Amino acid sequence: MGRSAFALVLALALAVCAASAERKCLLSGSWRSDTSSRMVVSTLNEDNRFSGFYLPGPAAGYSELLTSPLEGSQQDTELVPQPTFSFTVSWRLQDSETVRTSVFLGQCYVDSKGEETLHALWLLREAADSPAEDWKGTRIGTSTFTRIK
Amino acid sequence: MGRSAFALVLALALAVCAASAERKCLLSGSWRSDTSSRMVVSTLNEDNRFSGFYLPGPAAGYSELLTSPLEGSQQDTELVPQPTFSFTVSWRLQDSETVRTSVFLGQCYVDSKGEETLHALWLLREAADSPAEDWKGTRIGTSTFTRIK
Amino acid sequence: MGRSAFALVLALALAVCAASAERKCLLSGSWRSDTSSRMVVSTLNEDNRFSGFYLPGPAAGYSELLTSPLEGSQQDTELVPQPTFSFTVSWRLQDSETVRTSVFLGQCYVDSKGEETLHALWLLREAADSPAEDWKGTRIGTSTFTRIK
Amino acid sequence: MGRSAFALVLALALAVCAASAERKCLLSGSWRSDTSSRMVVSTLNEDNRFSGFYLPGPAAGYSELLTSPLEGSQQDTELVPQPTFSFTVSWRLQDSETVRTSVFLGQCYVDSKGEETLHALWLLREAADSPAEDWKGTRIGTSTFTRIK
Repeated sequence: MGRSAFALVLALALAVCAASAERKCLLSGSWRSDTSSRMVVSTLNEDNRFSGFYLPGPAAGYSELLTSPLEGSQQDTELVPQPTFSFTVSWRLQDSETVRTSVFLGQCYVDSKGEETLHALWLLREAADSPAEDWKGTRIGTSTFTRIK
Repeated sequence: MGRSAFALVLALALAVCAASAERKCLLSGSWRSDTSSRMVVSTLNEDNRFSGFYLPGPAAGYSELLTSPLEGSQQDTELVPQPTFSFTVSWRLQDSETVRTSVFLGQCYVDSKGEETLHALWLLREAADSPAEDWKGTRIGTSTFTRIK
Repeated sequence: MGRSAFALVLALALAVCAASAERKCLLSGSWRSDTSSRMVVSTLNEDNRFSGFYLPGPAAGYSELLTSPLEGSQQDTELVPQPTFSFTVSWRLQDSETVRTSVFLGQCYVDSKGEETLHALWLLREAADSPAEDWKGTRIGTSTFTRIK
Repeated sequence: MGRSAFALVLALALAVCAASAERKCLLSGSWRSDTSSRMVVSTLNEDNRFSGFYLPGPAAGYSELLTSPLEGSQQDTELVPQPTFSFTVSWRLQDSETVRTSVFLGQCYVDSKGEETLHALWLLREAADSPAEDWKGTRIGTSTFTRIK
């Protein structure tokens, strides 16, 4: 970590400041989900890719989930006003034996007041020992995010 | 149980015998899934409803799941040759504290040799203590069934 | 239809009146979803089974969906205060060629003020012509319902 | 495209040749799904990230889907023998008005003969015009891939 981690935190902080002045439905910035999880998303690179962190909510009942890195991309907001997006969260866990990964697939909507909302479905997979146990490894659900201002 | 259980077993046994002579894609009879689960389905009533039992496979890695009752319905095979169907499994568990329910939604296909295959997606829900824990309660997957002859 | 339809409407009307005085998390009564769909559920029979109707919301963007029958069951509220439930909607469509079926799997929660909320995941399947086209036939999403008083 | 496209094709060709000599469950190489789709995956970079192409099968019944780029990552096979993976397919369509995106989340298994199989669940989202239409935008299913030799 060290220097590069500091640079990332700095980039994320700048992203949060910058996002409010930007055009709508760039995922850059801070978001809160309907289950009180939060995520912080970096500025997008030239390919509309981003990185960031996902923080599980206190009420999630999954105390073993730690702040975890995410990687994703979105459609270009110069081409579509309400872009679709996807990102992957590689969960860091207190019990490091287990591997969990989530993928989110969603779309950003802007209402008549300019408020942005992210609607997403997600899959959460826990690694299995064998194909026979694979069937029970995947959870599913939805999340809605609003921007933290 | 007693007498009514015996009557049900008898009805199911008759259903298995009868099904082979029946028209295709009636769910009545015995089926094996791609994960070695089995299910036995009763004859359909006049509303195309059925009941039966679901037996988790030995390889399922879920030893606490016992043979469990199912209830469902299908489209009328006189109207459509490849009917859709749905059924609910109310899981009986060794640990009776937990409640698990599955719903299956699928379609029966018949190939050129007259072989029937059931393609289904399922959701499996575990009861949660509160809405805050609801998000992690649902698993998802697919199952394919072929008839046991 | 005729007399039996009238009897069902009457039973549903009585169910709505009765539900408010009943214990919580019986599904009997009228509910509105977060996408402005509504459903009306009959009184439960002795097996905790129910029937009813599902009315798609005006904003659903699916004008071809008509008021459609549903059938389902729930856990006994004398055994568990926050029961799980499942039901199947057999969609009636303006274009009667197409067959669509939904299954809902969820749980009823009661908050500290006695307000009931239904959280459900659903699958929506459109009949396919062949197994090769089966892969694209199933949609997924979530719905939240609150009681109409 | 031009020179960079040629370089990518060359890189992919080398990846296919190299993969057979590599350790198991690197996603690099060519794969065929149970619905006759194919995908070609590049060599992994130092972060276990990959790119590639997804080719819908002739039987998919979705003739408007063209060969489309994919981006993803997998767990490090030096840490786990049966790694989980995720990737996103940004669909190119003949009707360029529509936007479709898929995410795949899965795990690679190796059997006793050294044969690799990828088990994955996927979500496929079509962009909607408004939140009211969002509910019907997401399809779900499973895919199984085996290596093309």
